[in-house]
Amino acid sequence: MKVFILGGDGFCGWPTSLHLSNLGHDITILDNLSRRNIDNELEAGSLTPITPMGTRLKAWHEQSGRTINFVNINVAEEYDRLLQLIKDEQPDSIVHFAEQRAAPYSMKSSAHKRYTVDNNLNATHNTLAAIVESGLDIHLTHLGTMGVYGYGTAGMKIPEGYLPIEVTTDDGDKVQQEILYPANPGSIYHMTKTQDQLFFAYYAKNDHLRITDLHQGIVWGTNTQETNSDERLINRFDYDGDYGTVLNRFLMQAAVDYPLTVHGTGGQTRAFIHIQDTVRCIQLAIENPPTRGERVKILNQMTETHRIRDLAQIVARIANAEVANVPNPRNEDAENDLHVKNDLFLDLGLNPTTLEEGLLEEVTQIARKYKDRADKNKIPATSTWTQKQKPGIPDA
Amino acid sequence: MKVFILGGDGFCGWPTSLHLSNLGHDITILDNLSRRNIDNELEAGSLTPITPMGTRLKAWHEQSGRTINFVNINVAEEYDRLLQLIKDEQPDSIVHFAEQRAAPYSMKSSAHKRYTVDNNLNATHNTLAAIVESGLDIHLTHLGTMGVYGYGTAGMKIPEGYLPIEVTTDDGDKVQQEILYPANPGSIYHMTKTQDQLFFAYYAKNDHLRITDLHQGIVWGTNTQETNSDERLINRFDYDGDYGTVLNRFLMQAAVDYPLTVHGTGGQTRAFIHIQDTVRCIQLAIENPPTRGERVKILNQMTETHRIRDLAQIVARIANAEVANVPNPRNEDAENDLHVKNDLFLDLGLNPTTLEEGLLEEVTQIARKYKDRADKNKIPATSTWTQKQKPGIPDA
Repeated sequence: MKVFILGGDGFCGWPTSLHLSNLGHDITILDNLSRRNIDNELEAGSLTPITPMGTRLKAWHEQSGRTINFVNINVAEEYDRLLQLIKDEQPDSIVHFAEQRAAPYSMKSSAHKRYTVDNNLNATHNTLAAIVESGLDIHLTHLGTMGVYGYGTAGMKIPEGYLPIEVTTDDGDKVQQEILYPANPGSIYHMTKTQDQLFFAYYAKNDHLRITDLHQGIVWGTNTQETNSDERLINRFDYDGDYGTVLNRFLMQAAVDYPLTVHGTGGQTRAFIHIQDTVRCIQLAIENPPTRGERVKILNQMTETHRIRDLAQIVARIANAEVANVPNPRNEDAENDLHVKNDLFLDLGLNPTTLEEGLLEEVTQIARKYKDRADKNKIPATSTWTQKQKPGIPDA
Repeated sequence: MKVFILGGDGFCGWPTSLHLSNLGHDITILDNLSRRNIDNELEAGSLTPITPMGTRLKAWHEQSGRTINFVNINVAEEYDRLLQLIKDEQPDSIVHFAEQRAAPYSMKSSAHKRYTVDNNLNATHNTLAAIVESGLDIHLTHLGTMGVYGYGTAGMKIPEGYLPIEVTTDDGDKVQQEILYPANPGSIYHMTKTQDQLFFAYYAKNDHLRITDLHQGIVWGTNTQETNSDERLINRFDYDGDYGTVLNRFLMQAAVDYPLTVHGTGGQTRAFIHIQDTVRCIQLAIENPPTRGERVKILNQMTETHRIRDLAQIVARIANAEVANVPNPRNEDAENDLHVKNDLFLDLGLNPTTLEEGLLEEVTQIARKYKDRADKNKIPATSTWTQKQKPGIPDA
């Protein structure tokens, strides 16, 4: 299958590109290297020593004998080039990771809010408009987030995208309907993903585009089978306050003897998935597209849920670290429960990597191995949701 | 009250600016004249001879003794200027009309889809981000559309923005919730308004902005008390296939002996409001803002519903015209019922102008008076929703 990977240089996009290439798919990465440029802006980099795209692709060819193509393009801005690439290459499938993906980054300032909105919405919409204009029947798979659901679920397992409801007509009759799960995003970043959903629903309805939206949990771990095969293929590991996802941040904090910073009470419950399972899910998604005319296919891409304070305790025990409760820089409920359905991927054959089996390896193979590359000053989460919140910095 | 009118040069924005000025409010119009520029692009203009902004403001000052300020600015692009204006002038209220507002225009091509998405979403988001960054407690009133609801209502009157639903928990308990009415937009234009709703919900939740969203029906009529007071203050009247709203289009078609083009069976039911009531509703909205911390206040801004084929019959009878059923260029249900609640504005004192009393005046005072300015070639709706639909052109 010919596959375009939009955002194929990023944390999820890169291992996905390798995984699909390894399976024999013909991969073209479209990326403007924005994630590396944001590293420059934030003066923070990947804990792991990622190599330039040219080196990555050369190493992959040497390792596997396979070729991945790369086009440096900003899909949010360069519509005409995007359309021409689609017309010329006629991909069967497009996987869309080309969005700014960090909630704290999206809340840093008005400029960051505006960049996130402008980039994410135009990237998604340009892709949809280009598929329609090309006239090709291309399956689009998008990386969404569990965060579209919000975290108040009224004692109900979060379904996969659609919610059965009952409404009362003016005659007093009860009518059953199934609706897109009501959006309740927790940041500007998450908000753009709820707006993406409306793009998808419209283009599936009006133009019968085939679209899969994956509502992914928080990704942890670093490497996959393919990125592990050569040091030059290593994946990003972000530990800074803006891009470091909570579990990876804890692992790195433990490695450098920095207290594990738990925001507020740590009563937030979140969904998680290992990066190895992410790439498998995307494989399953592109191998099982919806049919033309079907509504958007939504799958919850997560494998387990944990309360943040419990995660901190697990990491503290494994790595012999301290836990520090710090102010929560986010504007959110202190405590929440979360129950999520993920039957669709399990039914397709996903066999999850559990936290229990993978965590120790991350501590030793990544966090401890590369700890000297870390800048401790970049660890605290300093981006606050409003002026009322305080940065997540431990007491001195 | 100091009020910014974003998009104050347009069909709704201009009469609103005059109406609020006449009531003694201190009005500043922010507009990039995009609507006039689109006239140039489409080679179609207002049936009525609108004057340049400078002439409009001079005439208003001569008529009323009042001054309206004007700033030529693109709020979707010039964030820093917008923020500075807000900081300098400290408006109490901002009314936001600064969006591309025609469904057919939004469907003409990929470029038009992309312009509508980029302009509308960035205009709304820049305004919200600037209010937050200013630190001022400014009430934002936005012109939304009835089209966010879609037109399938399961035998239920469409509520004002929020839908009470019942969901079943995993324990089998029934839980009542109130959700944003599930979006079901009928065009790219309408879709952007459903995405605007998610902006508003987020900023009301996270930043406690005070926001009113007006879900307006199709506006008909041309002038208000103020635009009627001097020929130089006359409002736009669009009759072309992209911008002409259905009733105004019928009126003009009757005046120039062109058959009234009914799309498909004309079984579509739509909500309507007279432009005089639009400006009154906006007055009522800015005089009755939500309190800080309250959810977005949503009102249905419409006064009656009609089936399109019935409207055509009414106009045909009044103006002695022919009706022609033409292909429907839109991708929509052929027939729908529509029942809408509009109690909130009626409770605030709105006294609607009915179609019955206002229609004949429009025919004689506007459509017949200016009919020689019309270009008949611009009348048909040529923008089709997909390649399957055909333009709404009568047989020769």
